[in-house]
Amino acid sequence: MSKEFATRAENYSEWYNHIVTKADLAEHAAVKGCMVIKPYGYSIWEKMQQALDQMFKDTGHENAYFPLLIPKSFFSKEASHVEGFAKECAVVTHYRLKNGPDGTVIVDEEAKLAEELIIRPTSETIIWNTYKGWIQSYRDLPLLINQWANVVRWEMRTRLFLRTAEFLWQEGHTAHATSQEAIEETERMLGVYADFAENWMAVPVIKGKKTANERFAGALDTYCIEAMMQDGKALQAGTSHFLGQNFAKAFDVKFTSKEGKQDYVWATSWGVSTRLMGALVMAHSDDQGLVLPPKLAPFQVVIVPIYKTEEDLLKINAKVEEIRKSLISKGIRVKYDNRDTQRPGWKFAEYEFKGVPLRIAIGPKDMENGTVEVARRDTREKEVLQMVDLDNKIEHLLSQIQDNLFQKALSFRDQNIRRVDTYDEFKKTLNENPGFILAHWDGTAETEQKIKEETKATIRCIPLQAEERDVKPGICIYSGKPSERRVLFSLAY
Amino acid sequence: MSKEFATRAENYSEWYNHIVTKADLAEHAAVKGCMVIKPYGYSIWEKMQQALDQMFKDTGHENAYFPLLIPKSFFSKEASHVEGFAKECAVVTHYRLKNGPDGTVIVDEEAKLAEELIIRPTSETIIWNTYKGWIQSYRDLPLLINQWANVVRWEMRTRLFLRTAEFLWQEGHTAHATSQEAIEETERMLGVYADFAENWMAVPVIKGKKTANERFAGALDTYCIEAMMQDGKALQAGTSHFLGQNFAKAFDVKFTSKEGKQDYVWATSWGVSTRLMGALVMAHSDDQGLVLPPKLAPFQVVIVPIYKTEEDLLKINAKVEEIRKSLISKGIRVKYDNRDTQRPGWKFAEYEFKGVPLRIAIGPKDMENGTVEVARRDTREKEVLQMVDLDNKIEHLLSQIQDNLFQKALSFRDQNIRRVDTYDEFKKTLNENPGFILAHWDGTAETEQKIKEETKATIRCIPLQAEERDVKPGICIYSGKPSERRVLFSLAY
Repeated sequence: MSKEFATRAENYSEWYNHIVTKADLAEHAAVKGCMVIKPYGYSIWEKMQQALDQMFKDTGHENAYFPLLIPKSFFSKEASHVEGFAKECAVVTHYRLKNGPDGTVIVDEEAKLAEELIIRPTSETIIWNTYKGWIQSYRDLPLLINQWANVVRWEMRTRLFLRTAEFLWQEGHTAHATSQEAIEETERMLGVYADFAENWMAVPVIKGKKTANERFAGALDTYCIEAMMQDGKALQAGTSHFLGQNFAKAFDVKFTSKEGKQDYVWATSWGVSTRLMGALVMAHSDDQGLVLPPKLAPFQVVIVPIYKTEEDLLKINAKVEEIRKSLISKGIRVKYDNRDTQRPGWKFAEYEFKGVPLRIAIGPKDMENGTVEVARRDTREKEVLQMVDLDNKIEHLLSQIQDNLFQKALSFRDQNIRRVDTYDEFKKTLNENPGFILAHWDGTAETEQKIKEETKATIRCIPLQAEERDVKPGICIYSGKPSERRVLFSLAY
Repeated sequence: MSKEFATRAENYSEWYNHIVTKADLAEHAAVKGCMVIKPYGYSIWEKMQQALDQMFKDTGHENAYFPLLIPKSFFSKEASHVEGFAKECAVVTHYRLKNGPDGTVIVDEEAKLAEELIIRPTSETIIWNTYKGWIQSYRDLPLLINQWANVVRWEMRTRLFLRTAEFLWQEGHTAHATSQEAIEETERMLGVYADFAENWMAVPVIKGKKTANERFAGALDTYCIEAMMQDGKALQAGTSHFLGQNFAKAFDVKFTSKEGKQDYVWATSWGVSTRLMGALVMAHSDDQGLVLPPKLAPFQVVIVPIYKTEEDLLKINAKVEEIRKSLISKGIRVKYDNRDTQRPGWKFAEYEFKGVPLRIAIGPKDMENGTVEVARRDTREKEVLQMVDLDNKIEHLLSQIQDNLFQKALSFRDQNIRRVDTYDEFKKTLNENPGFILAHWDGTAETEQKIKEETKATIRCIPLQAEERDVKPGICIYSGKPSERRVLFSLAY
């Protein structure tokens, strides 16, 4: 394939944009900061949704839908929430247009809202305002609800999937009778996210807690999963928040316990978004294009016929129909591309670029020999396989690819986690070997802020699972003050 | 069950609101005109989505996602579209809030958008603006895309599901090389909607074309399906539009044909919304509450244990676990409610009100006899069934209920379609026997408008399938002028 775009080494950012747009995942919309998710990209997102939705239901959650528009005053009700959220928002001020001069339309100034409405940047406020009517007694708890929705957070500098003004996500909002139950839920959903990232996306993640600085606005604790991209930067792939009684107090949501006592309800919220699409691209793709884990690929196998005559094609068509049926019966997603408007070489390049896990080619020779040529996208290896028992072999190969992608990402990540003990070493590592850095920190917001200002690196999390050597006391790399344990630093998306 | 709300006969509108709110389908949100779709209601909507989505995919469509916000100027590009749509819209004028006095937030007047953005009331404009970049050649056609999304149309008088400022829907937007193909697509999707309404919702529909007056803004032809509610009023349950080349011309979307000629692309759009939830409620429910067709019920069977001692309950639990498994293996959705916080009578009333198609009760006597008591929601009949082969019997009953609901709605509708030949008779029928009226109309917008003003009845459609006697010429009931055929009038939601 002719080199027509930047490699990862040359320009990671340009490489990423090229993959996302040319593999038909998404493109910039006419509206500043927004994106169009194209059918191929949306199909991957749908598979993510289906898997996550099932995991949510398996853990007892139900879906519901709350309004897109939130009265402005709701944001003032939870003091720290407003600081973090109500700023860069889309504000609806009018509800009518009218004809202007020369066939244009203009805003009808007479149709001005008494109170402005905000397009939800997240839904805690409107949901807790609703929960007030739903929760009276301990019998109404736990309330385990999820919403699939679009949200808008005004962004000036946007990147497809990673940071856009509008994005798609799910937001779970649960209510519990005790602090302990709410914390368990927060951790359970973090576990669901980690499970999904590793077993569906083939992206290894580190589970941890955010520092106070990086907490969700209104949360007592924010848990996260952090993944490493191929340029060594971190990407926060999901968050789960323990909200304590903050929102219950702000919206006056109380319940009567079994013992007849009144108390405020305990809350969690948790979400992942189309940002995961960006993580998926950056974790696995290579200089030849997109690489998709089989579990999330729109189609897992593409079959391309190689033929000279119409007669050959008809024979191949008949054989492929058999193969296709046996693959489908195994639950494998197959596409047969026998369009005569494109040559096989073009198709090979196309599906390679689009990251289809397996390509099967069948020509007249194969028909004679009862074979097919199978090419793996992840390793780019080809092999000739007998048609006999092909469905089992393909099923096995797909599972191997899924596993290989995870192992490759895991070993890359583990090779790029470093322990450093001085600030000089810290800065040098960020410069020369970007990756995750485990270092001592004195626990203060000031030090965290200084390090961020000077190096752009942030504390991604305080890992929940750590080696013994990482949870021993030490000396803060920046201040020289005592530190309880190492925390995880990185440059991040 | 004690009578605590209006019957259909007493107050149809109050009855409807009571069912929707008390059966936990939806409620009014804190934001004027918006609704919260509650978990039980959303679960029905999810089942509608799944069935429709599969039907769209089976007819070759792919999903994608386009921005929520549309630049105001886009609405001026298609002249008739702007008349119909760009008026009652939510207008975004600012993108930032800031701290106001006393912990409030206020709009930051410095963050005013150069061009206002409109929350999509429908997406033709933004989608056709995008298609311009996707379509160059006949090879790019047909383009068959669907979007699941929320839309906002400002409404002053709202009713849950039937008319809300924000609602959920799907909108298909397709592009074709010829007028003929686009018309075929328009009709195909109308067929999909009719199939869904009849075979999933158990609601019979009349397929037809709208008059010019009632066409979608920007369409050359609007097709619709019209269902009859139990009060005799019509509800438009889905529309499919042939848009001609209007949007292609407005957004300059041309393609090069096989022969190398340039032409504008032909378009369709089609949609159904959460309005279908309203249709579902009003078509089947009765004075005892919601009645759900089994195919769309969140759970199709609820099992309630009847017991005095803990020992009895344990035995019943074990037996129910067997029953539950065998029902699940048949793909039947089952809920077992053995909560000890509510008595059986309360549970019976609860699930009756929520429209669960079948209720199974098991008590100690049943355990001895190897029987269960099964109650149908649609007919409210009870029968005692042997546990042996129960899964097949239940499967059969569910299919009977689905069929019975359809037949009942069909016979109600057919009894309430009347032919009238004079305007007096027309008005009398509307007054005394509301339903569908087949009457002659002179084909003019003036007459249509006059009839609407004087009686509130509208031409629901010009039916695609009609009896021979209805497509013969006659005399317009209003003007006395010649009429080509009878058209379908009704009061409507």
